[in-house]
Amino acid sequence: QRRGVPEAVYAEGKTAEEVVDMLLAALETTGRGIATRVSDEQVAAVREALDDAGLDADVRWHERSDVLVIHGPEYEPPDVDATVRVVTGGTVDRGPAGEARAIAVEMGATVEMVEDVGVAGIVRLLDRLDELREADVLVVAAGREGALPTVVAGLVDTPVIGLPTASGYGHGGDGEAALAGMLQSCTVLSTVNVDAGFVAGAQAGLIARAIDDNT
Amino acid sequence: QRRGVPEAVYAEGKTAEEVVDMLLAALETTGRGIATRVSDEQVAAVREALDDAGLDADVRWHERSDVLVIHGPEYEPPDVDATVRVVTGGTVDRGPAGEARAIAVEMGATVEMVEDVGVAGIVRLLDRLDELREADVLVVAAGREGALPTVVAGLVDTPVIGLPTASGYGHGGDGEAALAGMLQSCTVLSTVNVDAGFVAGAQAGLIARAIDDNT
Amino acid sequence: QRRGVPEAVYAEGKTAEEVVDMLLAALETTGRGIATRVSDEQVAAVREALDDAGLDADVRWHERSDVLVIHGPEYEPPDVDATVRVVTGGTVDRGPAGEARAIAVEMGATVEMVEDVGVAGIVRLLDRLDELREADVLVVAAGREGALPTVVAGLVDTPVIGLPTASGYGHGGDGEAALAGMLQSCTVLSTVNVDAGFVAGAQAGLIARAIDDNT
Amino acid sequence: QRRGVPEAVYAEGKTAEEVVDMLLAALETTGRGIATRVSDEQVAAVREALDDAGLDADVRWHERSDVLVIHGPEYEPPDVDATVRVVTGGTVDRGPAGEARAIAVEMGATVEMVEDVGVAGIVRLLDRLDELREADVLVVAAGREGALPTVVAGLVDTPVIGLPTASGYGHGGDGEAALAGMLQSCTVLSTVNVDAGFVAGAQAGLIARAIDDNT
Amino acid sequence: QRRGVPEAVYAEGKTAEEVVDMLLAALETTGRGIATRVSDEQVAAVREALDDAGLDADVRWHERSDVLVIHGPEYEPPDVDATVRVVTGGTVDRGPAGEARAIAVEMGATVEMVEDVGVAGIVRLLDRLDELREADVLVVAAGREGALPTVVAGLVDTPVIGLPTASGYGHGGDGEAALAGMLQSCTVLSTVNVDAGFVAGAQAGLIARAIDDNT
Amino acid sequence: QRRGVPEAVYAEGKTAEEVVDMLLAALETTGRGIATRVSDEQVAAVREALDDAGLDADVRWHERSDVLVIHGPEYEPPDVDATVRVVTGGTVDRGPAGEARAIAVEMGATVEMVEDVGVAGIVRLLDRLDELREADVLVVAAGREGALPTVVAGLVDTPVIGLPTASGYGHGGDGEAALAGMLQSCTVLSTVNVDAGFVAGAQAGLIARAIDDNT
Amino acid sequence: QRRGVPEAVYAEGKTAEEVVDMLLAALETTGRGIATRVSDEQVAAVREALDDAGLDADVRWHERSDVLVIHGPEYEPPDVDATVRVVTGGTVDRGPAGEARAIAVEMGATVEMVEDVGVAGIVRLLDRLDELREADVLVVAAGREGALPTVVAGLVDTPVIGLPTASGYGHGGDGEAALAGMLQSCTVLSTVNVDAGFVAGAQAGLIARAIDDNT
Amino acid sequence: QRRGVPEAVYAEGKTAEEVVDMLLAALETTGRGIATRVSDEQVAAVREALDDAGLDADVRWHERSDVLVIHGPEYEPPDVDATVRVVTGGTVDRGPAGEARAIAVEMGATVEMVEDVGVAGIVRLLDRLDELREADVLVVAAGREGALPTVVAGLVDTPVIGLPTASGYGHGGDGEAALAGMLQSCTVLSTVNVDAGFVAGAQAGLIARAIDDNT
Ligand SMILES: Nc1ncnc2c1ncn2[C@@H]1O[C@H](COP(=O)(O)O)[C@@H](O)[C@H]1O
Ligand SMILES: Nc1ncnc2c1ncn2[C@@H]1O[C@H](COP(=O)(O)O)[C@@H](O)[C@H]1O
Ligand SMILES: Nc1ncnc2c1ncn2[C@@H]1O[C@H](COP(=O)(O)O)[C@@H](O)[C@H]1O
Ligand SMILES: Nc1ncnc2c1ncn2[C@@H]1O[C@H](COP(=O)(O)O)[C@@H](O)[C@H]1O
Ligand SMILES: [Mg+2]
Ligand SMILES: [Mg+2]
Ligand SMILES: [Mg+2]
Ligand SMILES: [Mg+2]
Ligand SMILES: [Mg+2]
Ligand SMILES: [Mg+2]
Ligand SMILES: [Mg+2]
Ligand SMILES: [Mg+2]
Repeated sequence: QRRGVPEAVYAEGKTAEEVVDMLLAALETTGRGIATRVSDEQVAAVREALDDAGLDADVRWHERSDVLVIHGPEYEPPDVDATVRVVTGGTVDRGPAGEARAIAVEMGATVEMVEDVGVAGIVRLLDRLDELREADVLVVAAGREGALPTVVAGLVDTPVIGLPTASGYGHGGDGEAALAGMLQSCTVLSTVNVDAGFVAGAQAGLIARAIDDNT
Repeated sequence: QRRGVPEAVYAEGKTAEEVVDMLLAALETTGRGIATRVSDEQVAAVREALDDAGLDADVRWHERSDVLVIHGPEYEPPDVDATVRVVTGGTVDRGPAGEARAIAVEMGATVEMVEDVGVAGIVRLLDRLDELREADVLVVAAGREGALPTVVAGLVDTPVIGLPTASGYGHGGDGEAALAGMLQSCTVLSTVNVDAGFVAGAQAGLIARAIDDNT
Repeated sequence: QRRGVPEAVYAEGKTAEEVVDMLLAALETTGRGIATRVSDEQVAAVREALDDAGLDADVRWHERSDVLVIHGPEYEPPDVDATVRVVTGGTVDRGPAGEARAIAVEMGATVEMVEDVGVAGIVRLLDRLDELREADVLVVAAGREGALPTVVAGLVDTPVIGLPTASGYGHGGDGEAALAGMLQSCTVLSTVNVDAGFVAGAQAGLIARAIDDNT
Repeated sequence: QRRGVPEAVYAEGKTAEEVVDMLLAALETTGRGIATRVSDEQVAAVREALDDAGLDADVRWHERSDVLVIHGPEYEPPDVDATVRVVTGGTVDRGPAGEARAIAVEMGATVEMVEDVGVAGIVRLLDRLDELREADVLVVAAGREGALPTVVAGLVDTPVIGLPTASGYGHGGDGEAALAGMLQSCTVLSTVNVDAGFVAGAQAGLIARAIDDNT
Repeated sequence: QRRGVPEAVYAEGKTAEEVVDMLLAALETTGRGIATRVSDEQVAAVREALDDAGLDADVRWHERSDVLVIHGPEYEPPDVDATVRVVTGGTVDRGPAGEARAIAVEMGATVEMVEDVGVAGIVRLLDRLDELREADVLVVAAGREGALPTVVAGLVDTPVIGLPTASGYGHGGDGEAALAGMLQSCTVLSTVNVDAGFVAGAQAGLIARAIDDNT
Repeated sequence: QRRGVPEAVYAEGKTAEEVVDMLLAALETTGRGIATRVSDEQVAAVREALDDAGLDADVRWHERSDVLVIHGPEYEPPDVDATVRVVTGGTVDRGPAGEARAIAVEMGATVEMVEDVGVAGIVRLLDRLDELREADVLVVAAGREGALPTVVAGLVDTPVIGLPTASGYGHGGDGEAALAGMLQSCTVLSTVNVDAGFVAGAQAGLIARAIDDNT
Repeated sequence: QRRGVPEAVYAEGKTAEEVVDMLLAALETTGRGIATRVSDEQVAAVREALDDAGLDADVRWHERSDVLVIHGPEYEPPDVDATVRVVTGGTVDRGPAGEARAIAVEMGATVEMVEDVGVAGIVRLLDRLDELREADVLVVAAGREGALPTVVAGLVDTPVIGLPTASGYGHGGDGEAALAGMLQSCTVLSTVNVDAGFVAGAQAGLIARAIDDNT
Repeated sequence: QRRGVPEAVYAEGKTAEEVVDMLLAALETTGRGIATRVSDEQVAAVREALDDAGLDADVRWHERSDVLVIHGPEYEPPDVDATVRVVTGGTVDRGPAGEARAIAVEMGATVEMVEDVGVAGIVRLLDRLDELREADVLVVAAGREGALPTVVAGLVDTPVIGLPTASGYGHGGDGEAALAGMLQSCTVLSTVNVDAGFVAGAQAGLIARAIDDNT
């Protein structure tokens, strides 16, 4: 297993049984199990299996983001001396943003949210500029036209990771306009796929670690 | 001929001769001739034909936007009591923006430019907010990720017409990301096709007239 | 809050509880609550919450367009001296057209419908030309090949906002052909995204206000 | 060789020599040679080859449409008792429309043009309704948003073949919007590919023959 | 109402009540009602309404193609002296092909089916060549790679209308490969949109009438 | 170097000097140099370099396919006991088909051409069925609607590799319709990218070797 | 029936009854029935029909891949002396990979699986290199970015058939990125459509037979 | 000016004069001028202008990548204590990779190249694993199927920025397959647009600075 990114089960399209098996195996070998895109049924099955096994594990279910994180009794979480801020344009971005947060937290970074600062009301964004500038890495989630990471990257010197979210309808809907806008950004940022909160969070975690390692 | 939008020759793909013929005909019947997407050769041919015909016309050649406007000696330009402002993100938007301006001017509106206020440096934009707010209609041209009209429309109560420009490269290049972003805008604006400066300017002109008529 | 466009909750993808909360908050602060893309369940929840709160509000549910508008007891609607006409090609366009109407009405404009005048029977359209010409702004909704705004804009000097609707099947279905056709229109019009009735109505409202302000 | 559609050389991407060889072979075996998408150089080469061969052939070069038709001295053209009308929206459609006309003529049909009746000015179209109604088959060429065949098919009971042309720029340019619009048409018509004047003309010719055969 | 193409209700997305109303209105004014894309519920509602109204109508329900045709007691069907053959590649094409057949029948043509002659087994197709050649018009339905109309059009001198069907999966699925293939066909044919059986049948009916008129 | 597929320089976008260097290096180490997509200038530069170096090499320039093959004086070509036949629909497919042939020949297979048997005239194809059936592997090149590999694969039990070619114009042009058609084929075949003659030929060569090895 | 590829019923979109009929017919004429994309209901119906008919058939249901294979009591399976290995990147590829395996087995090849060797952990792949090199033909299934067949083809001299699977989300999801990546591969391989396990398996079977025939 | 990313002139589509003016202005205000996508003519004009102005500047022209960097006599380059490695799959990636390197160098990072380690020969890549693992940040440039960043990110714990390059032809060409593949990557990486070497280099530079700052 690589030190960098924790293994995570992509639960969509798997049976509850398969998810249970993979998480218990992870728990046994690494003391931790993570799954994304988990359904309510799968969560219930996992809880039941932990009960049945009499395992004294700490189960965290991020309902809004469909992320499940389990720590075994002996698990020692990593600690990285660097801050990731996850920024969102609106309510609709909370799912993927929460996925990003959960993964970066699991990689040991300090993670904070800066929410609902979409470009439709630029003043609310400017009000929180200090918070943005203090972070070591920014994950900026935005749907619709996806302009938020561009505007943010024009205001800070921090590395920005754009996270396009699958909102919007009609032409360019489902996150395609947001993704294309981030790729075309006239400021500097790198991007991940639509709704790829896991990837954005893990990339932020890797950067945070690189920063910490150098300390 | 409709009172609203002036006839204009779309010169691309026409021979110099065809452009000359159509412009002279317009000049004769309406006192004015307008052509867009005109090449240097076509301009030269028109100038020569006007000379040959001994016509005392006022020829304006907007080189950067490839627009040619000719007024016959008796031409009385319309006058509309409303202001259109044409906003650009950067140098690259000047061509289509100039096309929009030229048409709105020909429809009688007062037209002013607000240039180089792209979202990469949001402060430069905020510095000119008063100018934006004073206008009756705004045409906002932007390429790359095309976020400028969205940000502007979040700051004013004026009708905004988005004009995506064919800049950018790679995925979403040639104005496609900008167009999709304007269609997905989380603020209120209507849009025209990529590089359709003529349409944006004429729509602004029609709104300016509607405002003026009601005075 | 901007004077121009009223806040509206985009209800799709939100829980009934979230919609209720956001509407009650709006009602309290502005005397009015608007939501689009509302489901039957969400409407029921809102009605119940208003009952529970003993609020004497005026609730209008535009079932066909899934728009919910609530006026508090003291709410004073704006009044704008300008007429918006919303034109449809056929039955299938009624949903988005109704969304546009509801928003323009809320912005204070006088709004009238001109329905079922699709280009398949051009004579029915010509019969109603006077109505089209009398309006100050036109929103023209059309699906399939989306030719109606083009034909209308060729017959009037009024600003036309094209509203492509998600009808049609096969290649260019879901409103993509209609949108592309409006962007390519050989007459002058600006457009909004597929099914973006809210945006079309609000843009018409902004133009109506600009006209009214100048009076 | 099939009795229906005459063989035609698609000259684009062939050397002048190859075009010459194929046309001379066709001339020898069928008394006629047809080529489409012919360049000026290829035409010159064919003329020279005919001269060198001392062939007394009738050469017709449709320069606008890049179609070359050669009749040998003994060639007896077919004669079909049915009329095809080729309708165009504007100047830009003349190339493909001329290709359609040339092929239908070669198949023996009586072919007439109805030009510049685009939907931007619906009255000019209505003025020529009788001509449209008298035809046995209509080929309707249109670019940009491609609405003309839809409007025409709503006014006649004649079979209409839509011919989208590669005009327009930006999103849906190069004839894609026109094609999608014809496929989505809310009236009845069949269509051919963008700029496929040959196919539209030949299909009209086949229908004309079917009509004639039944006489 | 135009003599050419019969009015038909497109039932998808309409309530049972709306479909009933529109069909009863058609029945009253023209003696006939036709609806396509009809669901089982809608059919039941129509039958019930006819019963309730005590209308002695002849109801034909083409279940496979979801087409409903109702003839009033006095209805006199048209009679056209021309034959349409509807050809299919496989089982999967039967729905759209049946829609085409039903409409052509309603327009008075003699319609016959030539089924399951897909290009995977070219010999079965050649075995039925005489049937294909005897027709006055051919509608050729094919999904997947959509090669059948191309091969058929290479074997006959009859006008061929290609009808791409929404079969296939992966890249080019849902009929897009079939449509593109028909537009690119190296033989002469015109095409309609994916699954547009109504359009194909009506176009065949119009050609059949043109043939008959000339008799 | 792998025994299977010979190294080949993709010359497009390289300077003449780079191509020369890479070919001379290949010649020295393997006794053979192959380049595809070679321009006339690059060929001249290579010939000159061989002269200058006084190298007694056998240079074969496949002008139609832009493939250059050089054998050093001691080069011993491989010999594989299996036959590849390369089939084309028309003239336009000769470039990529020739590229495929050249590579398969270099891999030691016996390669023969079956040309101009496009599906527009199915009889010409059936006439050559024996040739197709005798081959061990078939590469079938086709442009436009790309139906030929489908029809061929329905007639033989030999593995068929589809090679879509970049012909056609309008929607689905540049080989996209042909590629989609081969992927959707209702018979069994595998495919390569548009104009990827090298890949098709090399895959045929690998299969030929696998057959030979087992002998 | 062709000796090469066994007939298989594509069950999706067929009624249980139709699937039963086609399978029983196949069983009677060839001693074997195969169906792909079979639902649980269809399987139940087939089992019941076999019971009712008192047929002593061997029924194999590959649940993960939705493939049903039935051998009649006298059926003699073919035997081909060549090995196909089916390689997968991850769990998600098992469905299509199993479809490929089932068909290749029915064609008589020896088929073995090499599973979960995705490129994210290249070492696991290198560990199994010998297995890959011993095969006569490789089918390599991969989703997401679809890089596995490229890497495998760079390591072996065996013919590789790429099988892109419909995994992944966002831009390039549903197998489109995997397909495009295989078509663009910088190593030599041919590909089939997304999830076309049947085609990949049958093509592998045809190559295996060609190898065996030559023995 | 932001401390983070240096201003750079995007020279494509600008006149030589405009590029000269912008670079001289940058030189005067910041002591440095950078331009990307510079043509030979523009470079010559800049050199001449520097000569004319008698400016003693250090001009570096990265011909392969079309990047021009000018340092004024007093310019003090930044120095960042972190290493960026720029990895390429093949020759074709050198242009964008060099653009990335030039920008990262200007931001003060130590930059080294790891070239020609494409996935077609995975062993060459594994041979250089130590170099990859020692870097603080990796930019990985790849065209065609773009699998290299995925494979690299599976082997290291360093942040990887994928840089898709516009190579490849046919479906997914011009870098679209590479981009989609990186977005779908089954390992963790963020990406930039096709050929956006500037953005990749600047993002790497920002991360390098973040690492250095923390030291
Ligand atoms: N149907 C609609 N289409 C487009 N935008 C809408 C629609 N309804 C509401 N909005 C806008 O979307 C914003 C609300 O987004 P949200 O915060 O997700 O509820 C509001 O500010 C409205 O301006
Ligand atoms: N402009 C055209 N568009 C479509 N098909 C054409 C055109 N001109 C010729 N053809 C057809 O293409 C075939 C000739 O192709 P080729 O053998 O490449 O010259 C002829 O059989 C014609 O039916
Ligand atoms: N999963 C599959 N993917 C692609 N082709 C298939 C598949 N299953 C069966 N087929 C082919 O499709 C044909 C059956 O189509 P149908 O007549 O619709 O059942 C058979 O001849 C098979 O060659
Ligand atoms: N090759 C490039 N790719 C993307 N962005 C660039 C590139 N070169 C310069 N830029 C950015 O584009 C802006 C310059 O645009 P312009 O004003 O058009 O010269 C600069 O602020 C740079 O950040
Ligand atoms: Mg949840
Ligand atoms: Mg100019
Ligand atoms: Mg409703
Ligand atoms: Mg010409
Ligand atoms: Mg049914
Ligand atoms: Mg050549
Ligand atoms: Mg199953
Ligand atoms: Mg250079």
